[in-house]
Amino acid sequence: MQQNAIRHHSFGKPLEVLKLESIEQPQPQAGEVRVRLERATINPSDYGMIGGSYGSLRELPAVAGREGVGVVEALGAGVSGVEIGTRVRFPGEDGAWQASACVAAEDLLVVPAEVPVDQAAISFINPPTAYCLLKKIVDLQAGDWVVQNAGNSAVGLSVIQMAKAFGLKTISQVRREELVEPLKAMGADHVVLEGSGWPKSVADLTGGAPVRLALNSIGGESAIDQIKALGEGGTQVTFGGMVGDKVRFPTRFLIFNDVRLTGFWWDQFGKRHGVDAVRAIMAEVYAMMADGRLKLPIEQSYPFSEYKAAIQHDSQPRLGKILLHP
Amino acid sequence: MQQNAIRHHSFGKPLEVLKLESIEQPQPQAGEVRVRLERATINPSDYGMIGGSYGSLRELPAVAGREGVGVVEALGAGVSGVEIGTRVRFPGEDGAWQASACVAAEDLLVVPAEVPVDQAAISFINPPTAYCLLKKIVDLQAGDWVVQNAGNSAVGLSVIQMAKAFGLKTISQVRREELVEPLKAMGADHVVLEGSGWPKSVADLTGGAPVRLALNSIGGESAIDQIKALGEGGTQVTFGGMVGDKVRFPTRFLIFNDVRLTGFWWDQFGKRHGVDAVRAIMAEVYAMMADGRLKLPIEQSYPFSEYKAAIQHDSQPRLGKILLHP
Repeated sequence: MQQNAIRHHSFGKPLEVLKLESIEQPQPQAGEVRVRLERATINPSDYGMIGGSYGSLRELPAVAGREGVGVVEALGAGVSGVEIGTRVRFPGEDGAWQASACVAAEDLLVVPAEVPVDQAAISFINPPTAYCLLKKIVDLQAGDWVVQNAGNSAVGLSVIQMAKAFGLKTISQVRREELVEPLKAMGADHVVLEGSGWPKSVADLTGGAPVRLALNSIGGESAIDQIKALGEGGTQVTFGGMVGDKVRFPTRFLIFNDVRLTGFWWDQFGKRHGVDAVRAIMAEVYAMMADGRLKLPIEQSYPFSEYKAAIQHDSQPRLGKILLHP
Repeated sequence: MQQNAIRHHSFGKPLEVLKLESIEQPQPQAGEVRVRLERATINPSDYGMIGGSYGSLRELPAVAGREGVGVVEALGAGVSGVEIGTRVRFPGEDGAWQASACVAAEDLLVVPAEVPVDQAAISFINPPTAYCLLKKIVDLQAGDWVVQNAGNSAVGLSVIQMAKAFGLKTISQVRREELVEPLKAMGADHVVLEGSGWPKSVADLTGGAPVRLALNSIGGESAIDQIKALGEGGTQVTFGGMVGDKVRFPTRFLIFNDVRLTGFWWDQFGKRHGVDAVRAIMAEVYAMMADGRLKLPIEQSYPFSEYKAAIQHDSQPRLGKILLHP
């Protein structure tokens, strides 16, 4: 049996190196199940893996994509306790942009029935990243202030909604005026325009309370503005680097304001802490998705055959995620 | 009574704004003692305060200098238990480059008799900074590797000698080949030339052990090299910024290598933790100075009247500290 897969044989720009190919359908080995893809996600970090700059890379030729959701459709020898049709994370280790893939039954991440398929498709990377950023870096108390850039990204929107659920206050940096109202409608306390000099008046935004945590997925001046806005002893955690503008290394803030810079990578968290820790965090994410406290916008889902249009659409300004399906 | 003081009436370059002036000798108030300066130190951070870039600045006109040692020469009303002639830290809050200054008797930092006066003069900032960098940032174990830049600075030389005493291993970055042997003679495990690409072969230097802590007082490429050399989960602590070259913000190391960047400022440590914590650390420093495990080179001591020559000498390549005396 053959199946469709979006692959690349070299590292480079997605539209230049990706190809829709027919490959052998994988058969589940003992202890494995095969999962049929329902929806895969396009994430910014996919481009880092395709381009060869991401933290961990696949052997070439590689199926692209890191995130998707599907249903169990075949059981390997010795697998019990797993029902055909169970909705689970589509195994991203082998690449998510393919019609099916196999995974060890004991590693399955099951999606509760109350979670819609589109929300499930984008639940495995961005929302748990947002959860960990708010819960695992510094010990925040209700009422504490958090600043983030890329406020309109899927992590950014998750942070806004989760912070609301946790009683935290947010300042979200964005690049376009038209994002202000939609983000406020989702629960953002303040939305500020990047490059507007907002750190000078951060005390007005917070009523004089210190900003304790800054979430940086961009870099450049936007990250430096966060460091300026942080209170003494504040922490900036970087979990993405979408823009790598050259900026002055902010040593004086480290020394005199006791600011700390750290990083977070969900992939590594999962490897370090194991599948049970991941399941515990996903349970929190799904509780919020199930009762509507967390709902991320979806822009459109494209069939694999239109992956180029999907990637082009993904490069346009928008608020929702682009998905792929076989 | 009048006394000499090296003061500045505006912020700027030391040789342009400093003046040797005659000012009123201070009289100890109730609870205070007056200390007569024996030796004051010239530290790089003095230039930051004179120039107006340091973390905390004095009101103008200001006596320059942050560090010195002297003897108690007069007691204010109600002071008991302090003997005239006791060697103590010269109060740096009011500026150390003056013939005498007053301090609350309860804040006195007493120098043990076994410590030579020149070593005492440079004991209050650089050695406790080095001590805290090695003891208060990450929990190092004997055999752990530490990298530092400005290996020939007074902090750098303190780090080399203290690391030796604590069973830690050091890689010291320097800019001049002729510093390699003197630093090794003081106990440096490895001395590397900045810009030589040494991080590529860091595993050869450590025998494959990870570098757990990087000490940065320079910034620029020298700091980035340290970040590249750090092992996963390693910490870089910045405590000075002598060169502020523009460098790319090293976000990928934060994300993928779990490197953390933090800062240290001895002045702030003292304010936060109080005089007893400072005394406890100074006791450790003096124990090492008393038995010779810690000995910092002194280049020359100049009288106040030759302060310009002292500052010019301080700008030249050298290994020892320049001191001032009234």
